[in-house]
Amino acid sequence: MIENLKKYLVEFIGTFFLVFTIGATAAYGDESCIAPLAIGFVLMVMVYAGGYISGGHYNPAVSFAAAIRGALEWKQFLPYIIVQILGGACAALIINLISGGLDAPAKDTFNLGTIFVAEFLFTFALCYVVLHTATSKRTEGNSYYGLAIGSTVMVGAFAVGNICMGAFNPAVAVSAIINGTVCCPCIALLTIGANFLAGLCAALIFKCTNTEE
Amino acid sequence: MIENLKKYLVEFIGTFFLVFTIGATAAYGDESCIAPLAIGFVLMVMVYAGGYISGGHYNPAVSFAAAIRGALEWKQFLPYIIVQILGGACAALIINLISGGLDAPAKDTFNLGTIFVAEFLFTFALCYVVLHTATSKRTEGNSYYGLAIGSTVMVGAFAVGNICMGAFNPAVAVSAIINGTVCCPCIALLTIGANFLAGLCAALIFKCTNTEE
Amino acid sequence: MIENLKKYLVEFIGTFFLVFTIGATAAYGDESCIAPLAIGFVLMVMVYAGGYISGGHYNPAVSFAAAIRGALEWKQFLPYIIVQILGGACAALIINLISGGLDAPAKDTFNLGTIFVAEFLFTFALCYVVLHTATSKRTEGNSYYGLAIGSTVMVGAFAVGNICMGAFNPAVAVSAIINGTVCCPCIALLTIGANFLAGLCAALIFKCTNTEE
Amino acid sequence: MIENLKKYLVEFIGTFFLVFTIGATAAYGDESCIAPLAIGFVLMVMVYAGGYISGGHYNPAVSFAAAIRGALEWKQFLPYIIVQILGGACAALIINLISGGLDAPAKDTFNLGTIFVAEFLFTFALCYVVLHTATSKRTEGNSYYGLAIGSTVMVGAFAVGNICMGAFNPAVAVSAIINGTVCCPCIALLTIGANFLAGLCAALIFKCTNTEE
Repeated sequence: MIENLKKYLVEFIGTFFLVFTIGATAAYGDESCIAPLAIGFVLMVMVYAGGYISGGHYNPAVSFAAAIRGALEWKQFLPYIIVQILGGACAALIINLISGGLDAPAKDTFNLGTIFVAEFLFTFALCYVVLHTATSKRTEGNSYYGLAIGSTVMVGAFAVGNICMGAFNPAVAVSAIINGTVCCPCIALLTIGANFLAGLCAALIFKCTNTEE
Repeated sequence: MIENLKKYLVEFIGTFFLVFTIGATAAYGDESCIAPLAIGFVLMVMVYAGGYISGGHYNPAVSFAAAIRGALEWKQFLPYIIVQILGGACAALIINLISGGLDAPAKDTFNLGTIFVAEFLFTFALCYVVLHTATSKRTEGNSYYGLAIGSTVMVGAFAVGNICMGAFNPAVAVSAIINGTVCCPCIALLTIGANFLAGLCAALIFKCTNTEE
Repeated sequence: MIENLKKYLVEFIGTFFLVFTIGATAAYGDESCIAPLAIGFVLMVMVYAGGYISGGHYNPAVSFAAAIRGALEWKQFLPYIIVQILGGACAALIINLISGGLDAPAKDTFNLGTIFVAEFLFTFALCYVVLHTATSKRTEGNSYYGLAIGSTVMVGAFAVGNICMGAFNPAVAVSAIINGTVCCPCIALLTIGANFLAGLCAALIFKCTNTEE
Repeated sequence: MIENLKKYLVEFIGTFFLVFTIGATAAYGDESCIAPLAIGFVLMVMVYAGGYISGGHYNPAVSFAAAIRGALEWKQFLPYIIVQILGGACAALIINLISGGLDAPAKDTFNLGTIFVAEFLFTFALCYVVLHTATSKRTEGNSYYGLAIGSTVMVGAFAVGNICMGAFNPAVAVSAIINGTVCCPCIALLTIGANFLAGLCAALIFKCTNTEE
């Protein structure tokens, strides 16, 4: 039990800093701020710091993929999601408090199909990278998993950050509703659906490529 | 046989995301998008995720160099190239579909000799780095090979991205024809020739510096 | 004794280069200079170079957290802080000498509460990352600790560098007084208080998540 | 003998790509090109690719420090410097050939004392990092040495690239004379002197902090 509480604490802290960095770069970053680099690398940092305790998911879609793959007990799935969303919500509230509220980005050309494809593809890449670098027996003990995982989010933010939420993470999508940085909740819901579907697909692909595990 | 299909799947996915990131940063990246960083790091990410399964080439010139060096069976060479080109083509088609078509960059000062030299040099560097960090017995088990490989492409894109296609990869050159981001097919052919020649040279140099393997 | 002098020398050099880089990017960096990247990575570099000798703190708040966690002898705490501040002060004086003096950044919208929260959060993240990646038995021998530690400061500088000193380090705050880059000493004092409090909290959290050590 | 030729070949290739990248980013990089990132990371890449063969110096000042420290035989010192300068010179000539000649950067506020201090400090940092991460027995087998070494040059280029040549490397200084990117040869000579003096100091400091080796 105490071991589980440690995991929840680590997942809370990691998701908190991920969402706080997303919010702070949006609220305070000027043109010299490279937000995708900050966001990808804060994930990297938290994966390295907490990965050996909780797995370092900080993302319900990743926890979903890990559970399907067998790297997370199914009975831990719901608690993980809850603390991740709580961590993100706390960060979003603090950002609201100190910044006086964020503006939704003016991306009025949002296309629902494009949002779905973009969120799906990079959440798939993220879960695919997590499963292969952090849960495969054949890559155990490597020192690159955090760099690979964080960089996937950085790449996604650079590549499709202008045509979708760039969340790749349901906890981030929920916190965006709290921060008011998504123009309508339906886009957040579509994002969350794409994220979980991507986690499912990545886990199935992992099972295909790692049949011996 | 099933092991080979796993490799083809991994090569398909990796080349898909490499080409998708190149296309998406070109289509949607604004002035705050650091495309070379995104492109180099998506390659890094995919090398780390799939390298232990397929070798993580995602590039026919790298597969060519690996085959000469003895790190890829020659009978796998053609299947590898085919799935790499298919992966890149799929990504290019999706980019076309969701973006409504890209514009060729207006690099009217293209010089054929310069294109050849620039593509040759950085494809050589890429293959040289792949062979030394990912196939040499003396560096086995290291955690830096993906970072080194991806960063080589990032450096090439920064250094000569404005004076050549910046492909360093025949599968990327083919997808650029599909995307219409190369002004004439002859430049893509010249690029592909330079890429394969560079792979050959890098493999020969590797054999010189690693005579004991 | 001679072993301790080695540690002090390494801490002096590391803090010197950290503060020198902060000052030099402020004094000479133009719009193409990505100061957070330079500052985070100089810390990374110095952690990798000297970490195996002194622990690679270069930061009194980190030394405080390390002492509470049991990774630094308490009797070394004061000497460490002194050489860190001396290293930072030397760098600040050289910057003053060669640059003819820096200007305080015109951040007149500074809010004391926001400064405290921002400095606290990222100093907490920094100490949390140091303790988990560089002092935990379960992550011993990894090659990522320097990357994780340096990147935390880079992320903090991107995320909240515009709403606080962005020091996350009492030695940096002291050197900012010497450089004249903080508008009033009270802000430096507030920063230093937030830094040490964050070090305390991170050490307590580490004890919670690593009860077996 | 054949083993020595392998080392010279690797040193030639590495210095070639370092100088080529410096020249190409100067000649062709637009405002979106982050030259310090490209330059630091090409060094990283070449250190990872060739470090296990030649030590991956690509820099006469580093070879000097390595020789003093005992990581390079003194009889190899001169051949190393010669192939490094040849590699750099080849790259500079190719850049001249394909670019039609570079312009010297208009840094008319150059101050000789500042140039000396800046070149000295970051060449010292570079040699200090090389000796501690790549030649110390206590850090043997790590995967971070190339990242640390390359990043030191990146940091130096960000921090003091506007107030000195930003070479930190006599072979780069020589190639700048060939490229015509240094306004007068005396500055290149001052730079080379600072580089070697820094190598000497770093080696002495290493001997102090690693007395047991």
